[in-house]
Amino acid sequence: MTDLEKRLLTALGITEAAAQVALGHFRNSPDIETKLDQSPVTVADKETETAIREGLARAFPREAIFGEEFGQTGAGGDMWIVDPIDGTRSFITGLPLFGMLLGYLTGQGPQLGIIRMPALDEVYAGAVGFGATCNGAPISVSACRELAKARLFINEGDKIAAQAPTVFARLVQAGELRRMGADCYPHALVARGLVDAVVDFDLQPYDYLPVSAVVEAAGGIMTDWQGGPLGMGSDGRTLTAATPELHAELIELVNA
Amino acid sequence: MTDLEKRLLTALGITEAAAQVALGHFRNSPDIETKLDQSPVTVADKETETAIREGLARAFPREAIFGEEFGQTGAGGDMWIVDPIDGTRSFITGLPLFGMLLGYLTGQGPQLGIIRMPALDEVYAGAVGFGATCNGAPISVSACRELAKARLFINEGDKIAAQAPTVFARLVQAGELRRMGADCYPHALVARGLVDAVVDFDLQPYDYLPVSAVVEAAGGIMTDWQGGPLGMGSDGRTLTAATPELHAELIELVNA
Repeated sequence: MTDLEKRLLTALGITEAAAQVALGHFRNSPDIETKLDQSPVTVADKETETAIREGLARAFPREAIFGEEFGQTGAGGDMWIVDPIDGTRSFITGLPLFGMLLGYLTGQGPQLGIIRMPALDEVYAGAVGFGATCNGAPISVSACRELAKARLFINEGDKIAAQAPTVFARLVQAGELRRMGADCYPHALVARGLVDAVVDFDLQPYDYLPVSAVVEAAGGIMTDWQGGPLGMGSDGRTLTAATPELHAELIELVNA
Repeated sequence: MTDLEKRLLTALGITEAAAQVALGHFRNSPDIETKLDQSPVTVADKETETAIREGLARAFPREAIFGEEFGQTGAGGDMWIVDPIDGTRSFITGLPLFGMLLGYLTGQGPQLGIIRMPALDEVYAGAVGFGATCNGAPISVSACRELAKARLFINEGDKIAAQAPTVFARLVQAGELRRMGADCYPHALVARGLVDAVVDFDLQPYDYLPVSAVVEAAGGIMTDWQGGPLGMGSDGRTLTAATPELHAELIELVNA
């Protein structure tokens, strides 16, 4: 077993245990706090990230971790990336579409990613060289090469409408089938071949790095709006596509 | 047992059986057709509505039915209202948020409603005088009386943005927590007290009539954008709110 395989299997086990912590708070009237950026955070976020950090510390003692709730601990460019509850608005409103994200980043980019959906009992995983899976079964992206035929998700539509209104106006006319969405799950559906493209906005590294590893392991593409690779310093605007042709059309659309 | 109780129990059984028909097609590459209004329809829609109609015909022979796929059969103002798969875009993209809607309408308005979520294994039901339930347990709306504190769903945001842009611009600033959504589920979450308000757009009677019966049985309010009662002839723009105060603020917002 390679080091990367071992990391992936260990990370799957850590997220499986931590998912129970998150589920214990779901639809259970969590206290809502407000962060400086106004996104709602719950006790569940903090407890769940703590569970993941404890698991990582046991398995990989001395490795760096960057997480949504507690920032960076440990030193080094190689690090674990943690979003304990991606989609706190879903979590708070009882929508079972919140996810748990865990990735491993090196100088070569994201090496592995996990998108676990605790309330749906689904886990998507991918690693460089090993392909992608959903609940252990291989998955891959669709063959859609044309935006006019694409099943498109517009994530964070309210923010795109407010901050990039001309892009939003084009997006709401694009694709064969559009749906407004949010957070990690539409990206997982791209990896699974059920959705063809996602335009996302205002993300943080812990939102897009684990997700991009799953998408790319499934054969898809995930970049910033200029088509550049995603890293810790990206601006948080992402394009996810099943094929290079579709990806090129999306780049054109958001930059026209 | 009253006639209405009998109808509700029978309708629950009919939707439980029909949900298996829908689930058999979910994530199973249904052939996508295109209707005149461009909404995607699958074989699953038609087979599922047929299952519901057969169940209704056995239990209530001679009663009128109005359904999404096959229109009206039978005569009379009292009728069953059927939407076999509410959220075909969710269904097609593998999102487990499609619902099955069944209601019973008389001259006094919707008398009962069922929102069944086949892929989530949840069923919401309500009837005039009997309250509302989720999987058999009583549910009720939240006590939220203020839009600034509300958990708000903006449904069909892309259509509102295109057709009512000034309303959309106000909506994306409203509420304490906003989420873009679609279809029946956010309304069910209002009935359950997890969401406080939903603004919806471009609905058909089979979309909003069964849903409104569940919301109102749970203590909430669902009207058109002017605050008028919902019927077969409403214009398809709806406001759903947990309390009268919140409802009044929504009416003001969409008509400002």
